[in-house]
Amino acid sequence: MANVAKKVSWSGRDRDEEDEPPAAGEATPLLNGAGPGTAGGPPHSRPVSEWGRLPAGALLWGNVFADLTPDLCFPQETEATNQFPSEIPHNEKLLSLKYESLDYDNCENQLFLEEERRINHTAFRTVEIKRWVICAMIGILTGLVACFIDIVVEKLAGLKFRVVKDNIDKFTEKGGLSFSLLLWAILNSSVVMVGSVIVAFIEPVAAGSGIPQIKCYLNGVKVPHVVRLKTLLIKVCGVILSVVGGLAVGKEGPMIHSGAVIAAGISQGRSTSLKRDFKIFEYFRRDTEKRDFVSAGAAAGVSAAFGAPVGGVLFSLEEGASFWNQFLTWRIFFASMISTFTLNSILSFYHGNPWDLSSPGLINFGRFDSEVFSCFPSFLLAGGILGAIFNALNYWLTMFRIRYIHRPCLQVIEAMLVAAVTAAVGFVMIYCSSDCQPLQGDSVAYPLQLFCADGEYNSMATAFFNTPEKSVVSLFHNPPGSYNPMTLGMFTLMYFFLACWTYGLTVSAGVFIPSLLIGAAWGRLFGISLAYLTSGAIWADPGKYALMGAAAQLGGIVRMTLSLTVIMMEATGNVTYGFPIMLALMTAKIVGDYFVEGLYDMHIQLQSVPFLHWEAPVTSHSLTAREVMSAPVTCLRRIEKVGTVVDILSDTSSNHNGFPVVESSPDPTQVGRPLASRLILRSQLIVLLKHKVFVERANLTLVQRRLKLKDFRDAYPRFPPIQSIHVSQDERECMMDLTEFMNPSPYTVPQEASLPRVFKLFRALGLRHLVVVDNHNEVVGLVTRKDLARYRLGKEGLEELSLAQT
Amino acid sequence: MANVAKKVSWSGRDRDEEDEPPAAGEATPLLNGAGPGTAGGPPHSRPVSEWGRLPAGALLWGNVFADLTPDLCFPQETEATNQFPSEIPHNEKLLSLKYESLDYDNCENQLFLEEERRINHTAFRTVEIKRWVICAMIGILTGLVACFIDIVVEKLAGLKFRVVKDNIDKFTEKGGLSFSLLLWAILNSSVVMVGSVIVAFIEPVAAGSGIPQIKCYLNGVKVPHVVRLKTLLIKVCGVILSVVGGLAVGKEGPMIHSGAVIAAGISQGRSTSLKRDFKIFEYFRRDTEKRDFVSAGAAAGVSAAFGAPVGGVLFSLEEGASFWNQFLTWRIFFASMISTFTLNSILSFYHGNPWDLSSPGLINFGRFDSEVFSCFPSFLLAGGILGAIFNALNYWLTMFRIRYIHRPCLQVIEAMLVAAVTAAVGFVMIYCSSDCQPLQGDSVAYPLQLFCADGEYNSMATAFFNTPEKSVVSLFHNPPGSYNPMTLGMFTLMYFFLACWTYGLTVSAGVFIPSLLIGAAWGRLFGISLAYLTSGAIWADPGKYALMGAAAQLGGIVRMTLSLTVIMMEATGNVTYGFPIMLALMTAKIVGDYFVEGLYDMHIQLQSVPFLHWEAPVTSHSLTAREVMSAPVTCLRRIEKVGTVVDILSDTSSNHNGFPVVESSPDPTQVGRPLASRLILRSQLIVLLKHKVFVERANLTLVQRRLKLKDFRDAYPRFPPIQSIHVSQDERECMMDLTEFMNPSPYTVPQEASLPRVFKLFRALGLRHLVVVDNHNEVVGLVTRKDLARYRLGKEGLEELSLAQT
Repeated sequence: MANVAKKVSWSGRDRDEEDEPPAAGEATPLLNGAGPGTAGGPPHSRPVSEWGRLPAGALLWGNVFADLTPDLCFPQETEATNQFPSEIPHNEKLLSLKYESLDYDNCENQLFLEEERRINHTAFRTVEIKRWVICAMIGILTGLVACFIDIVVEKLAGLKFRVVKDNIDKFTEKGGLSFSLLLWAILNSSVVMVGSVIVAFIEPVAAGSGIPQIKCYLNGVKVPHVVRLKTLLIKVCGVILSVVGGLAVGKEGPMIHSGAVIAAGISQGRSTSLKRDFKIFEYFRRDTEKRDFVSAGAAAGVSAAFGAPVGGVLFSLEEGASFWNQFLTWRIFFASMISTFTLNSILSFYHGNPWDLSSPGLINFGRFDSEVFSCFPSFLLAGGILGAIFNALNYWLTMFRIRYIHRPCLQVIEAMLVAAVTAAVGFVMIYCSSDCQPLQGDSVAYPLQLFCADGEYNSMATAFFNTPEKSVVSLFHNPPGSYNPMTLGMFTLMYFFLACWTYGLTVSAGVFIPSLLIGAAWGRLFGISLAYLTSGAIWADPGKYALMGAAAQLGGIVRMTLSLTVIMMEATGNVTYGFPIMLALMTAKIVGDYFVEGLYDMHIQLQSVPFLHWEAPVTSHSLTAREVMSAPVTCLRRIEKVGTVVDILSDTSSNHNGFPVVESSPDPTQVGRPLASRLILRSQLIVLLKHKVFVERANLTLVQRRLKLKDFRDAYPRFPPIQSIHVSQDERECMMDLTEFMNPSPYTVPQEASLPRVFKLFRALGLRHLVVVDNHNEVVGLVTRKDLARYRLGKEGLEELSLAQT
Repeated sequence: MANVAKKVSWSGRDRDEEDEPPAAGEATPLLNGAGPGTAGGPPHSRPVSEWGRLPAGALLWGNVFADLTPDLCFPQETEATNQFPSEIPHNEKLLSLKYESLDYDNCENQLFLEEERRINHTAFRTVEIKRWVICAMIGILTGLVACFIDIVVEKLAGLKFRVVKDNIDKFTEKGGLSFSLLLWAILNSSVVMVGSVIVAFIEPVAAGSGIPQIKCYLNGVKVPHVVRLKTLLIKVCGVILSVVGGLAVGKEGPMIHSGAVIAAGISQGRSTSLKRDFKIFEYFRRDTEKRDFVSAGAAAGVSAAFGAPVGGVLFSLEEGASFWNQFLTWRIFFASMISTFTLNSILSFYHGNPWDLSSPGLINFGRFDSEVFSCFPSFLLAGGILGAIFNALNYWLTMFRIRYIHRPCLQVIEAMLVAAVTAAVGFVMIYCSSDCQPLQGDSVAYPLQLFCADGEYNSMATAFFNTPEKSVVSLFHNPPGSYNPMTLGMFTLMYFFLACWTYGLTVSAGVFIPSLLIGAAWGRLFGISLAYLTSGAIWADPGKYALMGAAAQLGGIVRMTLSLTVIMMEATGNVTYGFPIMLALMTAKIVGDYFVEGLYDMHIQLQSVPFLHWEAPVTSHSLTAREVMSAPVTCLRRIEKVGTVVDILSDTSSNHNGFPVVESSPDPTQVGRPLASRLILRSQLIVLLKHKVFVERANLTLVQRRLKLKDFRDAYPRFPPIQSIHVSQDERECMMDLTEFMNPSPYTVPQEASLPRVFKLFRALGLRHLVVVDNHNEVVGLVTRKDLARYRLGKEGLEELSLAQT
């Protein structure tokens, strides 16, 4: 089966044009293909056309809709109908070929070495200072964006709650509360509609929390559009609207994505979307440097979201690091610190206590004392199991969505439906609840009296009327007795399903806060039951159980351990809680992993992303590079005919991306004594063709037009497709000298090397291509990301995913 | 100059016998050489004998004295006199050849692959569980050792202070305080003498904080004896005696070393010193696995010392990590958590509040509120400058010690002298001080009234009578006015010189706490001055300035940034302080680096250790592998004559450690078509020779005695020297088949690769040997650690260290 897949899809073909629509030559035949139908059978054996224009994951991350016009959702247009089959079959045991790779290996060609040798020590110091300046800017801007989101959400949500509250108060007296329900539902739906429309029609990649996408980017996968300015704008507006729309979502996850976009934008010193080039930071226009800054941005985002600078650094390292770079880590930490500090200063200033500095993050758990707690492990299993149920439900839902809800207008309708249902559920539960609590001070932002006596408020209403962040904090800190067990139980149950339904909608929203809220609710419930059973022993403080429950539930859903422990520790501000939090998270992970994967990993897998985990599967020592690699490889000669290069690049059936350059014949079967292989990238060839760096056959000695590194940097990252470059028939007869541009020492492995060895080299150095050579140093194959990501440890041992043109 | 050095010293010669005295064949000619004298001239051009038996760094880390008898310090023995010249010339621009490397690259030979393929998924899980169990044990034991040190120090120091206090109180009334001074000085000196004797005569590597040694170990350098049980015992006793002896030292640094030893011991499931093999954890008997556990141990040590589990993880990563391994990081974190939790539980129990859990570390800074502070950057420069002065003074002192104080008995005398001087200085300052403070509650452990009025105590006496940890905390938290500026100034000045003199003595002791104390003192002084100048503005809380001063001073001395920020943040328990602490540390580092290196790096350099930094020097792109590598290389054939192997291994002039195995002729100059190179290690050959894995020349087809991986593991880490293996003349004529044992796919680089590229590969994968091949895949050289460590960025650009036989 794997062999079949391999023939269809040469795995070196990750294309280079970041953010570009499929090249015409590749896309055209697909549009002519059949519509829906012919479901069943392994995907790679089907006509490619069926998978062509519409990637399976379009509704979540797709970059396709961005290039289509909004009117696609009107079914009367026949072409549109063709393009949106009513069901899209999907299989998660696939790796998509549409994702390209980033290249973290510097191409040390002659141009690069010449530049590096020209630069003296002082110039290197200037570059280093620039890096720090960029990190400071990333931190400041991320902090500012977080402030903006926080303040706008607070204002808008306050406005909405006031309107609804006044309305309910009015109708409570004179009857007709169904009008209030209607008002609430319509208000929420319309806000969510706006949020969903901008995401679905303008930038689908801004949907969700963005964490899976950033994980992929840091892992080395190019996710189209993910770090664009437009994405940032949509993300920020989208998350504000989702939260204000009353969905069961948080605004923390999207901060990570926002930070990453900010970082990518600043570090390049230009905006391709706005067509502005500030001519600064040109040195950083390559994948290696850009990724480093994106790591810093993601860390700054975490830091601003949770007031957890160290957690942010660890998050970036956990997701992105391969080779540990000390200086980079410092810069990441610096950006994180600045981010939380900026947020803290501005929010403190905004709240009128400029020197107080008590808002390091968008959510602050409040301080816990380090007293007595114990007995908690008994309920830790719950986190893992509930997390697994959440993920399993969401898995089915996502499969359903991929298959059936792939049109933007359907997606908007679903989002509106969820908003209305959320409002309705909340309303019914408030209506049915009889949990009245005495009103003390101003602990409750929008106290709803409803049917309670004067001076009391409806406790259930608080849970729905507060923003989720505030609900979490009240569950942690409100004194014992603030919540009725019945209220908590009903709330947990309802919120669980709502949150599960909400994640994966076409809106910008995070899953951290809903998870924390669910966990805090059942944790507190457990604490209350325990206090009841033990007649109120001192160690049964429900607030602490709420904290542990929140940690366990979040761990059970997202399955991060290290960074999450540190984030929670920093958010509680107490080192002593580190150990129990860690135990809760680890148990949740172990238990949850037994049933189903983590939410983010699940979504990454459903998108068929070639994601490389930290290590090769443990039982893969029996595989060697020879079995893993893609072969045969198209090689180029050091001095190659232009026509040959154009033909190879235009060959859509083997859309290669890196080409070994050999001295002798390009035919790898011919026995000769080839020189050690060099490597040249498609993007480099494209730039060479574009600048017509040719020499006529007769005068090979003629000096070519000198290209500089700057020409490559200017073209980065959106290299034009080969079809856009016109090469005349005369030019086809010219030659190209690749000597200056090829990488003279790409990393190679012998073909007997085991998979874990290849994997380690590939992952540790962040490679994109790894040349496999035989005993005589002849090129026999190439290993790319997809060749490695295909092997996975399943329930029954090593399994191999198929490659598909989805 | 480099070429000359290269000829003398073949850099592939890092020897393999960990913890072994120099092999007889190597050491003998050196002892016959000349004694001292003939100073001057570049070291590599001198007769090797001069550098032979006595490594320059013996007084600090030397493993040589351990193998000599204690009576060596009596000068009447002529041989001893010869061995201890009165002056040992030293030059810091050297790399010593005596340090071997660790090998973090798994040798994937046939034996290994067979074993891995036999192991199924469940067995891998068992191995994984074992790893977690070991980490838990490391955490618990490290926590227990920390508790032991803490409690014993507290008891003994209390006893000593009571005796001295009673004595002073007695003589204050009736005059004759000089008797008290004498008592104090003698008491301190004798305690320190015991501590110094055990270190100097039994295990010199236990001297100092152990942090430089652990840094080197994690970096991949074998420091002899560093993770032995004996070292742990001496370290623990030594640090207790140093602290009780009243030296200006802390007990925190040594915890890191202790944790590392505990980890190394537990993970191997046996004690070579005690000759006990528990037959468990045999899978972990190789460098890769052992290093991983040592990282966890070091982290657990930091965690126990400062109550900073995250700081511990970051410390280990900062010093040790090359390739980021997620699972390893989790385990490290787990060990750290358990360590601080164990310490916390036991100390809380010991202090009678079992549920309080308020002692997460040996030193706890106490809680700071997150209110107002600002204006601090003005004095941040001071940290860097004072740190640089400290380091510069210590540098001269260390050079002096290396040259003149290299005999154990001199070292003991120096330690006693410092102890007596410390007592005397303290006494004189207490005597001269007139800073009387009212006695409130029991904030002072041993209040000394001296010449103060009743109900008052001498403030200066507290500073010297408390353990340094307590002094730090009082400087942080005592209300404004507790310290007289004069007292603080005098104390800072005196303590600065005492601490500087103390670091590098032959006692087990750390420099963290003295640095913090110096910094806290001048920080508080600065705060007081500021409060005075601004008439007591609210933002001039001297305690917070003390904290910032402490951070700046510590940063200025040790120059760690990331882990130190996190450690300080966790110790203060307040995220808000992270940003100013980070600024303080970074400024201190930048300013300090301008003048002189960090203390640990300085000591590592003075020991001529081939330490690899995180990146290659920035301006080294002009160097290629061809220029860097060691050549020519001794190659072996796949089926080699036993006699040849023995001769090559016995060749002391080129004490190689890894041998490329080629198919054709071992002569690299001969043009042929060699197969891709394989690699075999000296240690593997030794085991083969020891087990007589030979076949007679006539019957090559005869099956050899089967060796298993177990045979190699049993021999690890102390492989016998070649001289101890007897090979008869008949056996010399036999053949050895290396096929099964050699590494079939060692990492290679083409000879054109630039130094940064080679460096990155070497460092990221933790290699020991990197084979350099030419275009035809023929072996042309080997790159080892020393070839890379030689290049350094000096004040005037790239500089090259000489290799020397020190």
